[in-house]
Amino acid sequence: MAEEVKLIGAWASPLSRRIELALKLKGIKYEYIDEDLPNKSPLLLKYNPVHKKVPVLVHNGKGISESLVILEYIDETWTHNPILPKEPYHRAVARFWAKFIDEKILQTALKIGSAIAEEKEKLIEEVHHDLKLLENELEVKEKEFFGGLEIGYLDIAAFFIGHWLQVRQEVMEIELIHEEKHPHLCKWLAKLLKIDVVHGCVPPKEKHIAFMKARIEAAKFSSK
Amino acid sequence: MAEEVKLIGAWASPLSRRIELALKLKGIKYEYIDEDLPNKSPLLLKYNPVHKKVPVLVHNGKGISESLVILEYIDETWTHNPILPKEPYHRAVARFWAKFIDEKILQTALKIGSAIAEEKEKLIEEVHHDLKLLENELEVKEKEFFGGLEIGYLDIAAFFIGHWLQVRQEVMEIELIHEEKHPHLCKWLAKLLKIDVVHGCVPPKEKHIAFMKARIEAAKFSSK
Repeated sequence: MAEEVKLIGAWASPLSRRIELALKLKGIKYEYIDEDLPNKSPLLLKYNPVHKKVPVLVHNGKGISESLVILEYIDETWTHNPILPKEPYHRAVARFWAKFIDEKILQTALKIGSAIAEEKEKLIEEVHHDLKLLENELEVKEKEFFGGLEIGYLDIAAFFIGHWLQVRQEVMEIELIHEEKHPHLCKWLAKLLKIDVVHGCVPPKEKHIAFMKARIEAAKFSSK
Repeated sequence: MAEEVKLIGAWASPLSRRIELALKLKGIKYEYIDEDLPNKSPLLLKYNPVHKKVPVLVHNGKGISESLVILEYIDETWTHNPILPKEPYHRAVARFWAKFIDEKILQTALKIGSAIAEEKEKLIEEVHHDLKLLENELEVKEKEFFGGLEIGYLDIAAFFIGHWLQVRQEVMEIELIHEEKHPHLCKWLAKLLKIDVVHGCVPPKEKHIAFMKARIEAAKFSSK
């Protein structure tokens, strides 16, 4: 039976980009379905009825949701070119930081959009601090990538820093990541984005900027 | 070399109970260190410098934090009596719901403590609804336990319903889980708590009630 692999995503969603990158690194053929999030499709609602969010991987008719859960599924289903490290302790460390990225860095960066002045400063400081903690993982271990000599699970989880976070800081005219504060993270980012398959998963910059400007304006408006 | 396994936990912490249960189900000998959370020990700060939270598993001098990450580590390190299902899809489903429990059910139940009247009603409804979604996993598949015929990863993740959530509803004089709304979950709970090793991980009820009353009062006071 021919395998059916579909990815329901959204082009500007950092979590969708993650799954595209993992599938491409594994060389898995898939059909990409771009979701219009304000008008969610019956397909999305069928396969992720609980959260109604992208990304969703549909593999031979079965839906898998939550980007970090999908990454584990991809690695367990197509076992070539492993994404996760081999040793249980290294796997735990990678999972710890991926969870930290999603629950702390991404969430704090999202809050900046609708925050008032003083609160905004505090949130920016928090992102600086959390990115510093993350970069220690590279510095202390003198690694090329979080995955070691090649990119892996944590590089994929942190990949949004190279598009979503950088576009966000440009649009909001703030500095979330910068060379002086995060030299190792910036070096990592430069190396990461030079890899063809990674570069190919970055959304078109001008389109991304215009999209995010509109989103942040809409969020400000709705929070008034 | 003799294995050194330490669990830094707190007796009333639902996430610490999770790890105790997993270690006991695997029959792993460990030293339990109960943490006084208002006065965090140098040991906790050493092994979980990022979040400074329990539980932390220390295995041969290496610390692993975040309860769901620890469960995966335990299952990968001591591979007998597997906790996670075998098939990638079933593993993904279990991970999806464990994440749902931590990010939705636990967080919503926590918010009820300091919520004002109308908000409280809404949060209670949300817990009802989310527990219903969770119980569909038992109902639709006509399972004894989330793990099938025996308890597994998702049973361990959901185990807090049998102590923390039930004590919480008693202390707050509200109904979060009840037989009419969640018949399958209540049946699952009754079966789960009859298992000796599970029962042995439940904190002493009267002590737990007194502790939670004090915590909720303190939270009300600090939010005023």
